[in-house]
Amino acid sequence: MIKVGIVGGTGYTGVELLRILVNHPDVELKVITSRSEDGLPVADMFPNLRGHTDLRFSVPDVQTLGECDVVFFATPHGVAHSLAEEILNTGARVIDLSADFRLQDAVEWEKWYGQPHGAKGILPQAVYGLPEVNRAQIKEARLIAVPGCYPTSVQLGFLPLLENNLLPEQMLIADCKSGVSGAGRGASVGSLLCEASESMMAYAVKGHRHLPEIRQGMERAAGKAVNLTFVPHLTPMIRGIHSTLYAQAPGLAEDLQALYEARYANEPFVDVMPAGSHPATRSVKGSNVCRIAVHHHAHTGQVIVLSVIDNLVKGASGQAVQNMNIMFGLAEDAGLKQVALLP
Amino acid sequence: MIKVGIVGGTGYTGVELLRILVNHPDVELKVITSRSEDGLPVADMFPNLRGHTDLRFSVPDVQTLGECDVVFFATPHGVAHSLAEEILNTGARVIDLSADFRLQDAVEWEKWYGQPHGAKGILPQAVYGLPEVNRAQIKEARLIAVPGCYPTSVQLGFLPLLENNLLPEQMLIADCKSGVSGAGRGASVGSLLCEASESMMAYAVKGHRHLPEIRQGMERAAGKAVNLTFVPHLTPMIRGIHSTLYAQAPGLAEDLQALYEARYANEPFVDVMPAGSHPATRSVKGSNVCRIAVHHHAHTGQVIVLSVIDNLVKGASGQAVQNMNIMFGLAEDAGLKQVALLP
Amino acid sequence: MIKVGIVGGTGYTGVELLRILVNHPDVELKVITSRSEDGLPVADMFPNLRGHTDLRFSVPDVQTLGECDVVFFATPHGVAHSLAEEILNTGARVIDLSADFRLQDAVEWEKWYGQPHGAKGILPQAVYGLPEVNRAQIKEARLIAVPGCYPTSVQLGFLPLLENNLLPEQMLIADCKSGVSGAGRGASVGSLLCEASESMMAYAVKGHRHLPEIRQGMERAAGKAVNLTFVPHLTPMIRGIHSTLYAQAPGLAEDLQALYEARYANEPFVDVMPAGSHPATRSVKGSNVCRIAVHHHAHTGQVIVLSVIDNLVKGASGQAVQNMNIMFGLAEDAGLKQVALLP
Amino acid sequence: MIKVGIVGGTGYTGVELLRILVNHPDVELKVITSRSEDGLPVADMFPNLRGHTDLRFSVPDVQTLGECDVVFFATPHGVAHSLAEEILNTGARVIDLSADFRLQDAVEWEKWYGQPHGAKGILPQAVYGLPEVNRAQIKEARLIAVPGCYPTSVQLGFLPLLENNLLPEQMLIADCKSGVSGAGRGASVGSLLCEASESMMAYAVKGHRHLPEIRQGMERAAGKAVNLTFVPHLTPMIRGIHSTLYAQAPGLAEDLQALYEARYANEPFVDVMPAGSHPATRSVKGSNVCRIAVHHHAHTGQVIVLSVIDNLVKGASGQAVQNMNIMFGLAEDAGLKQVALLP
Repeated sequence: MIKVGIVGGTGYTGVELLRILVNHPDVELKVITSRSEDGLPVADMFPNLRGHTDLRFSVPDVQTLGECDVVFFATPHGVAHSLAEEILNTGARVIDLSADFRLQDAVEWEKWYGQPHGAKGILPQAVYGLPEVNRAQIKEARLIAVPGCYPTSVQLGFLPLLENNLLPEQMLIADCKSGVSGAGRGASVGSLLCEASESMMAYAVKGHRHLPEIRQGMERAAGKAVNLTFVPHLTPMIRGIHSTLYAQAPGLAEDLQALYEARYANEPFVDVMPAGSHPATRSVKGSNVCRIAVHHHAHTGQVIVLSVIDNLVKGASGQAVQNMNIMFGLAEDAGLKQVALLP
Repeated sequence: MIKVGIVGGTGYTGVELLRILVNHPDVELKVITSRSEDGLPVADMFPNLRGHTDLRFSVPDVQTLGECDVVFFATPHGVAHSLAEEILNTGARVIDLSADFRLQDAVEWEKWYGQPHGAKGILPQAVYGLPEVNRAQIKEARLIAVPGCYPTSVQLGFLPLLENNLLPEQMLIADCKSGVSGAGRGASVGSLLCEASESMMAYAVKGHRHLPEIRQGMERAAGKAVNLTFVPHLTPMIRGIHSTLYAQAPGLAEDLQALYEARYANEPFVDVMPAGSHPATRSVKGSNVCRIAVHHHAHTGQVIVLSVIDNLVKGASGQAVQNMNIMFGLAEDAGLKQVALLP
Repeated sequence: MIKVGIVGGTGYTGVELLRILVNHPDVELKVITSRSEDGLPVADMFPNLRGHTDLRFSVPDVQTLGECDVVFFATPHGVAHSLAEEILNTGARVIDLSADFRLQDAVEWEKWYGQPHGAKGILPQAVYGLPEVNRAQIKEARLIAVPGCYPTSVQLGFLPLLENNLLPEQMLIADCKSGVSGAGRGASVGSLLCEASESMMAYAVKGHRHLPEIRQGMERAAGKAVNLTFVPHLTPMIRGIHSTLYAQAPGLAEDLQALYEARYANEPFVDVMPAGSHPATRSVKGSNVCRIAVHHHAHTGQVIVLSVIDNLVKGASGQAVQNMNIMFGLAEDAGLKQVALLP
Repeated sequence: MIKVGIVGGTGYTGVELLRILVNHPDVELKVITSRSEDGLPVADMFPNLRGHTDLRFSVPDVQTLGECDVVFFATPHGVAHSLAEEILNTGARVIDLSADFRLQDAVEWEKWYGQPHGAKGILPQAVYGLPEVNRAQIKEARLIAVPGCYPTSVQLGFLPLLENNLLPEQMLIADCKSGVSGAGRGASVGSLLCEASESMMAYAVKGHRHLPEIRQGMERAAGKAVNLTFVPHLTPMIRGIHSTLYAQAPGLAEDLQALYEARYANEPFVDVMPAGSHPATRSVKGSNVCRIAVHHHAHTGQVIVLSVIDNLVKGASGQAVQNMNIMFGLAEDAGLKQVALLP
């Protein structure tokens, strides 16, 4: 049994980790931390866990965390910077769900997050935890940066085109729609039901923190600079991201459907849907699957890729567990076989 | 492995059965029927099942169904009447999620459902599949009538009071709020998002088909006639039933909290919450648990019980599988360990 | 033109007052206050008002407010206590949407609100602004306590029974379902879309601040003590209250439908629906109407009244404007003719 | 008073017309037709109208309709084709909310709608009712084709760029998100609350009927062919369209903000928001306003326009009334001053 600790268990990615891990056949949950809720049974805060765990929140403590095989960080950015190295030094591995180690360029990180990068020393060993790209490195990694939710859906949608150099040097567009849980469990007026339901709006059009992360991943895949416009939208639902991706590829001769199916043929959590499909986010609600459909308008040369995930699962906690499974040589889908909740 | 067939797989209880059964460790899904969708892969209709099953809908056929150990009916009322006996004759057992065998009084059934009872011959052998009441009979049963959604939440909420004869012969009230999935997957104007969201309304105040079923169960528990007023409400959410139960018990000396905890101490799927709690339906979304809180206003003598379930799980398909587990000597929670999806 | 001021314009009742008043034919909006947003155009906070008003928030100032004919308080409780008297002294009238003057018994108020009553001197002149009961006093009033949302829907539903002494001394039940806007625009975790949508829950079963207010109104109507159990529920929608009211009236000979129709025949904002109806909250969304249906189960003697309002209109700002219209001799429905937004 | 008739009053654009017209100061509603609901009071079907109108549905009859000054068609496509000419011949004017007269090219219409064009004779006199473009012609028109919902939001968003020839001959993208009311009030599985809520999906990526209409309008404005990719999405809310528009304009020197503000300076129903804004659909819920924000990424040359409307008001019934006001020389905003319902 893998001994697991979670730092920061009071947010949505924390409770989602718990939902997955309490039923994971190879995991023993040892500790979950929260400074503010020290002593409180987690099932008192999240009653869906009643009967599934008796764990109580405790104050984060390196020694206790160090007795785990792996420690997940489900914390706001900045927290893992200050704690991850100490935990790595105990021999435990670290899987960070925050943005702290996603950008390999610390200067870029500091620009977007507006604070000094607090862990430049260990940044080089951080592996970007997108299994569909980095499975081999994940296997050997001791520090994982779990991709963001938008970056997961956008990269998985564009990868086959980029890797095959099918996109000329032109503008790519990612028009993304996210459920409100992406904004976290913090009390903010903008996330109130009365503000966010029955409405749709774009936000951060000027620039969103996930843009450099997406661009980094796309440029690695393309082997060259990529022009990307990324517009996120707040959508009146709890879970789900729908990315609608646009690329001009006028002379494209390839059979895109076959290309996508081949690229993801062996991926347990990427589902290329039949030609002409329109995946709905509810088809992945609560599951670790990314469903993709690819469309090509022959007369205009426009490629349109539709990519949906559950932002809290494949976009966060599920993908984190997928990384853990790979790191510890478990079945990659261990604990991740949940069928999406439909309706 | 238990070989399972499902008659009528295109509705919400059908897809919910599939969601549970494709991950059930002791089950092999053999057949799922639909006259209208013959030949269609079920995952084409319900894309959440892509990658989990290759089954296709087929026309119902007694011989094929008879090769199963157990056949679930997830059909509108009347269908099981005409087919259940033939299937029982093959030796397979039947678990009916419809209303066909819930009322032991066929005359009462005919009054509420407005058509002749089509299976009076086998009605006496039908066991009402509420495990918290009938576990011993379920173990021996060959024909199970799975309780309705409202009746499950109301009966579990009132049972400890009724069984202990704590309610004088007075009016009991069940004010119940149901998500829209209770109305099924049929195309009807009243269930459109634009009609049912952002609104709350009572319906069937004059009389609802679940009333005689609830009354039958409550009277069995009380050993006498019960006066019940039942008012269902359509609530703007997909899943969930919240039953708010009222009873006058002025001189009550018992510690209701202890009474409820004792009654359900060994029940794997009934969770009596701490005194003063307010269970939310989302705490059971996608899970087979019924959560109950009991309140007592000492100054007025009013008892208020709050009882929540997921109408599609404990109120239908999950309870059906719980019955199957009991009938076949499996762990009662096999395939039913899902944690509620929160948020 | 009536000159109007609003104290506390940043909450939902404040913006709702503005929505109504900017189109009111007899009103000139002079001032709207907010300490925190001093100087900000209200249309910057509430973009639905762009093009309808150029007002800016200002710090509350008695002199400026005193130049108005009437000042609305759309503030948390306690604020009107400290400011209303000064404003009354300027000659302006006060319409308070908060709870500050709703209970005539200051001791009771202090018990439920947990703080000293700050305006006992002017409490006796406060008129409870339920026009269907107090129209004559409202006409003469200088200080109005606008009823709470739950109290409005419950009292209008029970009044005809109470006034006609049709209810013996027994337990009455008000099972009420409210949209989330009733919790206000403050940032709280419980009102987040991810917490409150797709869920239903009771709250404050032990006792809610609206209970003494409802009881006060019902006892005035009945002329005697009333036993009431009141259970509010948080419902996943923005606006609307649905009150389901229960009373035992076994030997009732009256034609309740006729009784209700007669009682409200001349009320511009109470709509008694045809016998057998089930009013939906969406039928009053954005309008000042209370729709009521009355049911009687002859065999059990149970009376069930369904009463729906928009909590922000008839339950707050619309009713406040209705009071203003009466006080100033305007047409009672001036500015209040909005048709509910359906769908 | 303008005498008004409505053909086809049982859908969402029909009830929305009624909501607006019953409070229109210059209108007298004479007749509303429905073959299926002949004789039913409209307020029985749409209880929000109780107290506002006593009209009953009647079977459409040319003579009765011909006594009106103007007849609105709120019907599925094809109906106005067969009836409009007869009504025009009586002297009444026609405002058609359906798609029947939106495309001036009947062949194109037949291709997209899959049936013969039934009114080619009067097609040339149809004026496309987008007041911001065709106000002069509308004034003289006897037959108006009210623009579709998507086309209204997309055209208003692109117009200033197109009219000023700021877009080279490149691909333009309209990524549009619509509430479910756009699908109408017909009973279809896809529009059920349980199917469409808590989910986001694209649809009709291969080609949507509004594409040729948008293209026609854009090409008129640009004076040349326009390449457009249009992807509509079903969004889990009742009302609202959010169009996110993309255009590459790398060398753009213009101040787009000033350009947009100047273009719409005199338009009563187009609100250009301050630079950097993100309009939300709820800011126009129930109102006839289109709010627009324009963004320019200088480093990539990408122009992003955000355009929101209420699909049932500015996208249908409100715009229809705006056309009527222009045709009859009324104040253009008569009956259209509703403030959006927020929250």
